[in-house]
Amino acid sequence: MVLVLRGELRLSAGKAAVQAAHAAVMLVTQAEEHHAPGLRAWFAQGQKKIAVVAPTLEDLTQLERKARAHGIPTVWVEDAGLTEVPPGTRTCLGLGPSAVGDIDPVTRHLPLL
Amino acid sequence: MVLVLRGELRLSAGKAAVQAAHAAVMLVTQAEEHHAPGLRAWFAQGQKKIAVVAPTLEDLTQLERKARAHGIPTVWVEDAGLTEVPPGTRTCLGLGPSAVGDIDPVTRHLPLL
Repeated sequence: MVLVLRGELRLSAGKAAVQAAHAAVMLVTQAEEHHAPGLRAWFAQGQKKIAVVAPTLEDLTQLERKARAHGIPTVWVEDAGLTEVPPGTRTCLGLGPSAVGDIDPVTRHLPLL
Repeated sequence: MVLVLRGELRLSAGKAAVQAAHAAVMLVTQAEEHHAPGLRAWFAQGQKKIAVVAPTLEDLTQLERKARAHGIPTVWVEDAGLTEVPPGTRTCLGLGPSAVGDIDPVTRHLPLL
């Protein structure tokens, strides 16, 4: 599972942590419905997660397209916008759960958060 | 849902985000088994999360005790320790999902991450 924060928003550490947590929960609940075997495999391997950064919304959108083309589940986190960003702002793209070998080629160029 | 990071570990933003995401997923999967009505209510209200900090493991342990006494679900995140901390280190305490009115008295004194 890779949690990709939108760098240009310059979120605080706490806000970024919450967006990553939203994405992880959304990916798990989505996988419970649509990708149950992949989810079980991911839990069995210690539910690995990594948080990385892509600079802009355009970068995130391209990444989402590439992930979908590779059959990797995706979710968008939109913030309620009560504090640091306007309502509906896309703050984070969640990818997975998928085998590391599937997801790594799509995200390995991104720096750690 | 309140995700309490252990301040003394001085985790990087990315590492803290991953610990918070671990806690959130663990709380959701725990609630699916043991607190389904509370979980549904929490999702219906926009799956609110907040990330805060408590200084030491002792502070986290006291907080866990207080949360349990208030009937709030808890989870510990232990890190696999491949990067910033030794294996098995407790990095984060997750609390909830619970009604804001139940969880707020236990955690409102803690600063945001």
